[in-house]
Amino acid sequence: MTASYDPDNIFVKILNGDLPAHKLYEDEHTFAFMDIMPRGDGHCLVIPKAQARNILDVDAQTLSRLMVTVQRIARGVMKAFDADGVTVQQFNEPAGGQVVFHLHVHVIPRFDGVQLRPHTGDMEKPEVLAAKAEKIRAALESA
Amino acid sequence: MTASYDPDNIFVKILNGDLPAHKLYEDEHTFAFMDIMPRGDGHCLVIPKAQARNILDVDAQTLSRLMVTVQRIARGVMKAFDADGVTVQQFNEPAGGQVVFHLHVHVIPRFDGVQLRPHTGDMEKPEVLAAKAEKIRAALESA
Repeated sequence: MTASYDPDNIFVKILNGDLPAHKLYEDEHTFAFMDIMPRGDGHCLVIPKAQARNILDVDAQTLSRLMVTVQRIARGVMKAFDADGVTVQQFNEPAGGQVVFHLHVHVIPRFDGVQLRPHTGDMEKPEVLAAKAEKIRAALESA
Repeated sequence: MTASYDPDNIFVKILNGDLPAHKLYEDEHTFAFMDIMPRGDGHCLVIPKAQARNILDVDAQTLSRLMVTVQRIARGVMKAFDADGVTVQQFNEPAGGQVVFHLHVHVIPRFDGVQLRPHTGDMEKPEVLAAKAEKIRAALESA
């Protein structure tokens, strides 16, 4: 069985405003922001505001709302960066690749001939993330 | 911009019964079956019956129904194989990793210490897929 939800995680701190984030989009139920350890330029994360550990315990309505925002961000990064494609990943439990235990979906713009970078744990420069976020927000606003 | 949907693809042939598949689950709107080139033992695919190329063009209702089945299959493989986690992947356009241009979601059971295999294009033996499918169907039926 999967473990239960633990609200002591960094995405809750971002939702509560206790940690900063490069915010891309927010509505009543979802929040999107830049991944600070991007595996590709423009790598975004989308999370629900509701408490869910991962896809194994989330309720259907929260999951549906989350995916509508994932789609919005996927379309946004295509437009913002004139990307050639998008890779969507969602990891469940440590064996599945999950590191933060609040449900989240990775949305990574992709470009012909450019591989995903390995997950090194290296942090991107804040000014780079801020510039990417600005472009994505502009694309979302003009959609 | 993303290309338009082309109904001449192998997942439509599977939905129509023109190509065989190791079926796991079917309802009015979605269909799940074994990936014949698994990147991990028990690798499943979930597709909508509605026509959609990928996450960029799908309508919200189809996406929501798809993800509810993705969750069902994720829970099913956890139970069927006593898995330690699940990796969910969804690829859009060739640069994003997409090879078949009918929207699909990969659901891959994961086990501690076992890496995903590279996508080699090697086909798994039908009897291996059939045995995995049997276990997943049994897990789904007893859920």
